[in-house]
Amino acid sequence: MVNEGIEGLLTNPKLTRLDNFPEVRVVLRKNWDKSKVAIISGGGSGHEPTHAGFVGKGMLTAAVCGDIFASPSVDAVLSAIIATAGDKGCLLVIKNYTGDRLNFGLAAEQAREMGYKVETIIVGDDIALGEDTEQRGLAGTLFVHKTAGYLSEEGKSLKEIKDLVKKVAQNCYSIGLSLEEGQKFQGKEESRLDKSEAELGLGIHGESGVEKISMEKADELMKKAVGKLQEYTSKENYALILNNLGSVTQVEMNVLLNSFSKTSIAKNVKLIVGPGSFMTSLNMNGFSISVVKLDDEIKEALLAPCDPATWFIGEFGKATSIDSPELPATLPFKASENEKTKKRLKQISEELIEMKDDINALDEKVGDGDAGSTFASAGKNIIEVIDKLPYANNWELLISLGRIFSREIGGSSGVLFSILFTRAGNALKENEDLGKALLSGLEKMKDYGGAEQGERTMIDALQPAFEALANGESLEKAKSAARKGANATKEITNTKFGRSSYLSEESLKNIPDPGAEVVARVFEKLAAIN
Amino acid sequence: MVNEGIEGLLTNPKLTRLDNFPEVRVVLRKNWDKSKVAIISGGGSGHEPTHAGFVGKGMLTAAVCGDIFASPSVDAVLSAIIATAGDKGCLLVIKNYTGDRLNFGLAAEQAREMGYKVETIIVGDDIALGEDTEQRGLAGTLFVHKTAGYLSEEGKSLKEIKDLVKKVAQNCYSIGLSLEEGQKFQGKEESRLDKSEAELGLGIHGESGVEKISMEKADELMKKAVGKLQEYTSKENYALILNNLGSVTQVEMNVLLNSFSKTSIAKNVKLIVGPGSFMTSLNMNGFSISVVKLDDEIKEALLAPCDPATWFIGEFGKATSIDSPELPATLPFKASENEKTKKRLKQISEELIEMKDDINALDEKVGDGDAGSTFASAGKNIIEVIDKLPYANNWELLISLGRIFSREIGGSSGVLFSILFTRAGNALKENEDLGKALLSGLEKMKDYGGAEQGERTMIDALQPAFEALANGESLEKAKSAARKGANATKEITNTKFGRSSYLSEESLKNIPDPGAEVVARVFEKLAAIN
Repeated sequence: MVNEGIEGLLTNPKLTRLDNFPEVRVVLRKNWDKSKVAIISGGGSGHEPTHAGFVGKGMLTAAVCGDIFASPSVDAVLSAIIATAGDKGCLLVIKNYTGDRLNFGLAAEQAREMGYKVETIIVGDDIALGEDTEQRGLAGTLFVHKTAGYLSEEGKSLKEIKDLVKKVAQNCYSIGLSLEEGQKFQGKEESRLDKSEAELGLGIHGESGVEKISMEKADELMKKAVGKLQEYTSKENYALILNNLGSVTQVEMNVLLNSFSKTSIAKNVKLIVGPGSFMTSLNMNGFSISVVKLDDEIKEALLAPCDPATWFIGEFGKATSIDSPELPATLPFKASENEKTKKRLKQISEELIEMKDDINALDEKVGDGDAGSTFASAGKNIIEVIDKLPYANNWELLISLGRIFSREIGGSSGVLFSILFTRAGNALKENEDLGKALLSGLEKMKDYGGAEQGERTMIDALQPAFEALANGESLEKAKSAARKGANATKEITNTKFGRSSYLSEESLKNIPDPGAEVVARVFEKLAAIN
Repeated sequence: MVNEGIEGLLTNPKLTRLDNFPEVRVVLRKNWDKSKVAIISGGGSGHEPTHAGFVGKGMLTAAVCGDIFASPSVDAVLSAIIATAGDKGCLLVIKNYTGDRLNFGLAAEQAREMGYKVETIIVGDDIALGEDTEQRGLAGTLFVHKTAGYLSEEGKSLKEIKDLVKKVAQNCYSIGLSLEEGQKFQGKEESRLDKSEAELGLGIHGESGVEKISMEKADELMKKAVGKLQEYTSKENYALILNNLGSVTQVEMNVLLNSFSKTSIAKNVKLIVGPGSFMTSLNMNGFSISVVKLDDEIKEALLAPCDPATWFIGEFGKATSIDSPELPATLPFKASENEKTKKRLKQISEELIEMKDDINALDEKVGDGDAGSTFASAGKNIIEVIDKLPYANNWELLISLGRIFSREIGGSSGVLFSILFTRAGNALKENEDLGKALLSGLEKMKDYGGAEQGERTMIDALQPAFEALANGESLEKAKSAARKGANATKEITNTKFGRSSYLSEESLKNIPDPGAEVVARVFEKLAAIN
């Protein structure tokens, strides 16, 4: 797996490897200029993108990769040194683990014997176990890679680079935190990509129910981590790395960033690397935070551009907001009178409320069972504002209905009717007649909704009724057309819309589309009102 | 969680939000210049860094965020339009899901009513279900964000931008693949960050055993995905997005990249975005690949720098390698004769083999139980080359032993002895006497190993013996000093090295350190040889 992962990285044309790979796993910059100091790091694999992911202009010259969680061999490190070090020599960046210290250390000794100029820097930024015990190298090591890589690119000497990274390593502290008990993934991991159930073509909405993830503990977890870090930091300025140790989701990482911003040391943090995956531990469900004290020299080195995209840094500050724009009022027009129109609208609204159970019963057979409730809620919402509407002006009334359907009712059908009424109102305002205006609204509804006539939706009743009106026919004719269209949906058993698309032809047979049925009933009511 | 995640993002001083957050969740660029076309996207949350993570110069002007997997409201979208659109208008980038299409569509209609210039582009890049069914919007949408953002920044008109993104959307295809059965994480997720067992201060090496992850299936999985994509691609040039849908590890993503590079369409891919997390589905264990056909215009737009670090792109090519440097031979010196030295070395080596079980038994009580095997293996390796060593010259012999210990024996003790012998050989070559040279080697061993005298290691026997020799005393005296040092380790019960550090004082009492015991026995053997 380690080898194939490295091969994957090498599709980057700026990288290459030594050809005794995989016996020796050295990833290095292609066309490396030996007149500069080589910056070499490495260690066990399983921490990707560390280390090979940070090879590139402005960071590492070469990375020496061991097996998963195991140090690379002395010969591998020595090969990297010989392949990259020129007259100016090389710096070995070593994370403070016994294996790395010994193997990189011996390689350094052997290279010196051979006449190479070699300096080493051992990074032990982990403060979890206090200062008495050996401090491990964690993501703070990346501050060393970045600053060393910058000075190397600037043509600085090995001594100048060593001086800077010594300062960085001495002023850099990290702490990691797991979000669940360790070892949990053991066993399961062995079969991760070895399943036969692999599912082709899933979307990005696979899991339902996950919206309930509780993050109340994020603040508490972050406070715990920062509490420890506080003992090592002062009131000066810092750069932060917020590192995903593996399987923390992106949204959780953002939540943790928010939690960090509430902690006592946040005000001293001026730059942030992340949140992102910089030094992982396979799929560990946890994160680490690393800080380094900033001075002008370190800041310049951290902010300088570099090739590896896996490194990214930006400013860190306080969340701000700007004034929200004022939205149009739900009822933007002055109320006005037209007794007949008002009476019709009121009675239709009442009819919508009344037919609730009927329509729900119908929808239970072919859909979610809530179509009746949705229309009843529309009726109730209209009744609530029945005295405030602009009845004297039909286009104002249609636009107002559009607003009510969008703001107060919502859901797909609320938005669809809102689109219909809004467009129809605008068309009417532009002097089309009512029938044509309604047809124009229906077209927009079809555009955004994606359904056409004949696909078992309310369009099957709306379309013939509006066409009748647009042709100058009577409301009575429009009513009959709507009813005919609604009844025809009983025979449409092949549809791709809504829940009906999952049902067998048998179960749809003889049942009208609930939306079309509502439309037909509304026209029937309308025609019956004097 | 969604709100806190957005608050986290807002620590980036280049971003801000509308102040009726969280009722309306609009993240936008701070100090946005309304003289340019605003590029607005959005949709359900849970896909981070999509969408808010892509707000910034050269990509999105604003992102409108819904609840997890739920479209934002019409009012939220309308607020984003009013807040960002100037005379040149705005483009809404809509992923092809019913909710997004309706809510963004209605907001577009309402904004047009209000006099805004609004264009929409609906992205349906998913080819999983074939062309008959509605194609969902997946990570290919990012190609649209990037190209639109670039043209906006260049000051282009809404029409110019719409023309380009239409071309991009029409030539962009995606397919997702899950690595295990869906729904698996349900339930578990609800308690992710809600555990009391949170462990402070873990390193990056939490899980053991994971090195056995099987990836044999990666090629097969990728072939499956590419097979589908092939039907839509031609022999022209493409850019690729390799997207982690959530919990795939970094090393697995690199392996998948390698698998991709072996597929039939890899040779047509010239640019790559990723591998990385661009459009996730919370912690789904899966990945997606998206391609877009390149022409000069699209290529320029994709490659242009932009502020969001979550977007990164580079060239894609074939893996290459360079010649590995030649390493020094294990035995670099000509064999030479010194009967007495050869005899001593041979007998000591035999003694190391002979004491194997003794030392293992000792180590079983205080360590891993393999110290005897390690030293026996050293003995065997020396015997194998016993006729090839440079006995006439002590410094050559010491360096040769250093090489053998590093190449053939390995492990911590192999490397530690290698450091000792290598340094001692070099010191001897520089005309120090043997005792002083050995002391100099011991110092290096202590440097890299991190242990000091008195910490229950072989140093406790080596140090007094070498000091005796350095002071010009006899081998007999050195032997006694080594024995005394080894015996003294029986009383050292407080140590931080190796497995002994985990054992109780009681279990260490009266048992010598196995390494020190070996050293004492070697000196005893040495003194006994005539």
